[in-house]
Amino acid sequence: MGFVLHPRLMADTAVIVDWSLSRVLLMNDKRFPWIVLVPRRPNLAELFDLDETSRTVLTHEIARAAERLKGWASRRGGTDKINVGIIGNLVPQLHVHVVSRKRGDAVWPGTVWGAGQPEHYGAAELMRVVGEIRDAL
Amino acid sequence: MGFVLHPRLMADTAVIVDWSLSRVLLMNDKRFPWIVLVPRRPNLAELFDLDETSRTVLTHEIARAAERLKGWASRRGGTDKINVGIIGNLVPQLHVHVVSRKRGDAVWPGTVWGAGQPEHYGAAELMRVVGEIRDAL
Repeated sequence: MGFVLHPRLMADTAVIVDWSLSRVLLMNDKRFPWIVLVPRRPNLAELFDLDETSRTVLTHEIARAAERLKGWASRRGGTDKINVGIIGNLVPQLHVHVVSRKRGDAVWPGTVWGAGQPEHYGAAELMRVVGEIRDAL
Repeated sequence: MGFVLHPRLMADTAVIVDWSLSRVLLMNDKRFPWIVLVPRRPNLAELFDLDETSRTVLTHEIARAAERLKGWASRRGGTDKINVGIIGNLVPQLHVHVVSRKRGDAVWPGTVWGAGQPEHYGAAELMRVVGEIRDAL
């Protein structure tokens, strides 16, 4: 079977764009500018499940997402650090979190995973932010 | 000035080995098999501060560390997932966490950063584990 986005990721995010390897998603949590990259290949759990060439592509996609998200966040309300995480303790499908963090944000200096409750965007706001970040990426 | 390991990383870890780009460190916390990779270049904070070639090298070093740590941990007591994190909210020097996680470990399924108190290895145990992981990597 080909690539199918994990239902938990589908429920928690909105699609921004497909890049050459990854589907780029916006986490529906307005506490943080938070992108998730999911390589569009079946049966991946760990970074080393990708062949070397794809791993290189993924790295460049992560770096691009991080740099552009930093630019977008700095124009929007500021950013102090980009956090990148490949966790997967709950959702086994390989996915990469790229999160813009700011001193004094909801969980600073802690990490965002499992911290507090997500605050969802309103429907119109979600569409607007998806569009803005798509343009920024 | 050339590369100098951040004092906080120096205090919290033991050196395992130097790879072509990264210094490979063992986090002194026996709750988790936990490696930290630090690219040996000055003035890096974000993944995108590295040039493309070095980013590719770093990715392969992360994947190698993850895969070998998984092998070591599976022989030692089991492993269910490798977590990778580039956080840097407290220590600004670019560094990459590679942590072997197991269902039922001290903070499962939460992430390890800022979770609970580290449990240090005894001196002899630390030397032994550093040696074992060096061989495994």
